Amino acid sequence: MKTVCIFLACSTLFAPLLYWTTPGLAATENAVEQWATFEASFQGLEKGNPFGDVELSAVFRQGTKTIPVTGFYDGGGTYRIRFMPETVGEWHYQTRSNRPELDGKTGSLTATAPSVKNHGPVRVRDVTRLAYADGTPYREIGTTCYAWIHQSPELQEQTLKTLADSPFNKIRMCLFPKWYVYNKREPLLYPYVGTAPATWDTARFNPAFFQHLEKRVAELRDLEIQADVILFHPYDEGHWGFDRMSAPSDDRYLRYAVARLASYRNVWWSLANEWDLMQAKKPEDWERFGQLIHANDPYGHPCSIHNCRKVFDPKRPWMTHVSLQNDRPDDAPSRVRQYQKPLIYDECRYEGNIPNSWGSITPQRMTASFWLALVGGAYCGHGETYKHPKDVLWWSHGGVLHGQSPARIAFFKTVFDAAPAAAAALTKEKNTWGVEGEYYLIYLWDRQPASLPVVLPEKTAFKAEVIDTWAMTIATLSGTVSGRIEIPLPSKPYQAIRLTAIRNGK
Amino acid sequence: MKTVCIFLACSTLFAPLLYWTTPGLAATENAVEQWATFEASFQGLEKGNPFGDVELSAVFRQGTKTIPVTGFYDGGGTYRIRFMPETVGEWHYQTRSNRPELDGKTGSLTATAPSVKNHGPVRVRDVTRLAYADGTPYREIGTTCYAWIHQSPELQEQTLKTLADSPFNKIRMCLFPKWYVYNKREPLLYPYVGTAPATWDTARFNPAFFQHLEKRVAELRDLEIQADVILFHPYDEGHWGFDRMSAPSDDRYLRYAVARLASYRNVWWSLANEWDLMQAKKPEDWERFGQLIHANDPYGHPCSIHNCRKVFDPKRPWMTHVSLQNDRPDDAPSRVRQYQKPLIYDECRYEGNIPNSWGSITPQRMTASFWLALVGGAYCGHGETYKHPKDVLWWSHGGVLHGQSPARIAFFKTVFDAAPAAAAALTKEKNTWGVEGEYYLIYLWDRQPASLPVVLPEKTAFKAEVIDTWAMTIATLSGTVSGRIEIPLPSKPYQAIRLTAIRNGK
Repeated sequence: MKTVCIFLACSTLFAPLLYWTTPGLAATENAVEQWATFEASFQGLEKGNPFGDVELSAVFRQGTKTIPVTGFYDGGGTYRIRFMPETVGEWHYQTRSNRPELDGKTGSLTATAPSVKNHGPVRVRDVTRLAYADGTPYREIGTTCYAWIHQSPELQEQTLKTLADSPFNKIRMCLFPKWYVYNKREPLLYPYVGTAPATWDTARFNPAFFQHLEKRVAELRDLEIQADVILFHPYDEGHWGFDRMSAPSDDRYLRYAVARLASYRNVWWSLANEWDLMQAKKPEDWERFGQLIHANDPYGHPCSIHNCRKVFDPKRPWMTHVSLQNDRPDDAPSRVRQYQKPLIYDECRYEGNIPNSWGSITPQRMTASFWLALVGGAYCGHGETYKHPKDVLWWSHGGVLHGQSPARIAFFKTVFDAAPAAAAALTKEKNTWGVEGEYYLIYLWDRQPASLPVVLPEKTAFKAEVIDTWAMTIATLSGTVSGRIEIPLPSKPYQAIRLTAIRNGK
Repeated sequence: MKTVCIFLACSTLFAPLLYWTTPGLAATENAVEQWATFEASFQGLEKGNPFGDVELSAVFRQGTKTIPVTGFYDGGGTYRIRFMPETVGEWHYQTRSNRPELDGKTGSLTATAPSVKNHGPVRVRDVTRLAYADGTPYREIGTTCYAWIHQSPELQEQTLKTLADSPFNKIRMCLFPKWYVYNKREPLLYPYVGTAPATWDTARFNPAFFQHLEKRVAELRDLEIQADVILFHPYDEGHWGFDRMSAPSDDRYLRYAVARLASYRNVWWSLANEWDLMQAKKPEDWERFGQLIHANDPYGHPCSIHNCRKVFDPKRPWMTHVSLQNDRPDDAPSRVRQYQKPLIYDECRYEGNIPNSWGSITPQRMTASFWLALVGGAYCGHGETYKHPKDVLWWSHGGVLHGQSPARIAFFKTVFDAAPAAAAALTKEKNTWGVEGEYYLIYLWDRQPASLPVVLPEKTAFKAEVIDTWAMTIATLSGTVSGRIEIPLPSKPYQAIRLTAIRNGK
């Protein structure tokens, strides 16, 4: 049997396709960027049930470092192993399998320095903040398109185009299709072999489904957008039954998803959307899922679980951050203090005009949630639910944005991006974020004071700016300010004050 | 010694002044309205300390009913006993005193039917609602002028004029003067004999101070406004020391205030503003105060205690209702369910533009608090803190109103007043208030849906109206509605829907 290995450097900059038959080929030829996906593929058994009958894994080695990686069956007799090198230099691997034709295969790759836009996967930094693996702060600006990968190809392309022009750098998206209000349509592909409704063989995955998912995850990565993949959700209600599979089916599914997706540096794991609404699962199921992901993901991607009413115990070791549904981000300081993990208000209701209380907030409120989360030491996520003649709502289907908050969130992002990397919620003043003595950002939310007293260091000159977060204007006060000052304000809501220490005449 | 009795019928309609020397005079001549103040006065000891040395009380009797009432010294050798008859007909009284010239005095009065605007004191009705003693619903629309009685006479008159033209029917007001930001002025009168700062003889009251207070309470009564008298507050900080008197002084003060004020049917007792900020008092002090008021007030006026951060135990028997500082009246349903008492959001921050977070909310938010409280089964209070060249802020000083919420609160009152007396929060739908099958009021707050589905009884025709609570307009849908319907809405915040069953062609 001929062994075929395909190397995919998962950057648009570098995507060679190599065939080789000799293990031990000079490693430098199999070059991928650090934090890109290396893939080795092999032909093997096609009959029986390759998903269940065949075990395949590999150990990747660099010096004394060893990384065990699980492979997966991708249909048509093809087996794949994917790996994301976290350090540059040469890596060697060797496979293990219960099938002799897949066992003991060896190979190597060279991880090269990452390209400019590749900062690696997102990690927890300084307890409550997020940064890319290379140390660059990750300033999360999320959005939500639950079922975008299950829509028509044209709509998916439009969604990607919209995302490319948007401020968003994370998207919450379901792996399984969605059956819910505005979402009573069959998807193009199903994750299992079978036909709707509910005749699935959950022991046999549909590779085409996952290949499509991976294509979308890779496209998001190239747009520098984190793919927050929601692994289970309750919006199925037995229509397909993916919300009520057996425990062995659930575990098999999670292992398969991790084996396929973990090498994409922009992948996040969201165990569930609204875990507490999933009646077929018990808290111990979620705990098992969290441990399974933790044990199987060699790279420790961000992992959380999203709630409806009840927040899952944020102390669980597998939970890297808290993914919160909560529409009061002014609570951020106390929650961050309590959780001692990065906190993302992933769902603070959606800007829109549908009847549901979760889908009819104003753009003012949506925008304010980002500012409140920021100054409270947390992060935020957007969603949009405007009525549409063809029921295409960004929140689930993607498409184009209709609301007034995305432009304000883009404006918000310019302020966020310009802030010092070390900025954090300052506990001595409410709704104040920054670096003591250097930089202060005060958000006044829906308050409308005519002025605000501020106490700055006496001996440092600060530039003072009044930011109208709704009108998207920044007015600079003439001269500099120090010590006790009173900042004049326009007596209207949604104002912020930015105070920046002037160093070296800047 | 000549005994002088002055009868004050405390309604503007009826205020005779009678002198008589013969106890047992035909009672019909001493007529006061039911729930008005009857007053008997006597000359007695002037030397020594009449406030402490002389004990005076009376028992009022009608058939087998007896009401014990405490008298008080009013300066110049005059002692008074006040009584509010709660039933019509003849009442007889007899005094008791440790001074022979005040002991054993008898007299009588006839309580006549109340005049049109006199509904009696406010009582708890049906666990969580308020009604006047005659059964008329009391639809609380509060405001706040903490120190209005301590301002210049001209300003006080202006405040009364503003109140007369306002929707407000309750005012929160401090008995003691206030020393605080915007309030660093000495009052015209002090409650004790002495001079500022802090040379008070707390065993000797200043009758002129209390006479002035009573004049204002009576004027409020005649405007049909409840006087929510705040008995202690922390905004003194030792300047006068009324926030840190000894326990005997506190108790003497409370007994004196109750003896003087309890016969005014519009009096409410608020043990404290922000009790939890008063460091000189312990929880057991507040408990003692509550019990003291409960034991000494013969009429059971509304009695509560206002919090800053910590709500005082709402289960205390002396607490008739919960007086809450909280700016999230959307919590009303759960709080009402928990407290099982009428709930008033007495302080949900103030409309204004001062720097403080509690004094710079928008008129939209102030207005919304009234609607949220209502549909949640509670009541609300207003306050206003706009900057003023002479520091005259309605919140503390009174004067005139500058904000945009009072007009909207007046509009709110027209809707509230037009609702069925039995309307209550309906738990099956959020933010819905009314009477099942008869009347529904749905408030959408800052949501902006384009329509709202509603399920009405199939066999009843309803009039449907869309109320713009900010624009103060009511649009009636043409025709009638029944069963499952979708109410079209203008996709903007602050809308309400009113659905009224049409009975007998109305």
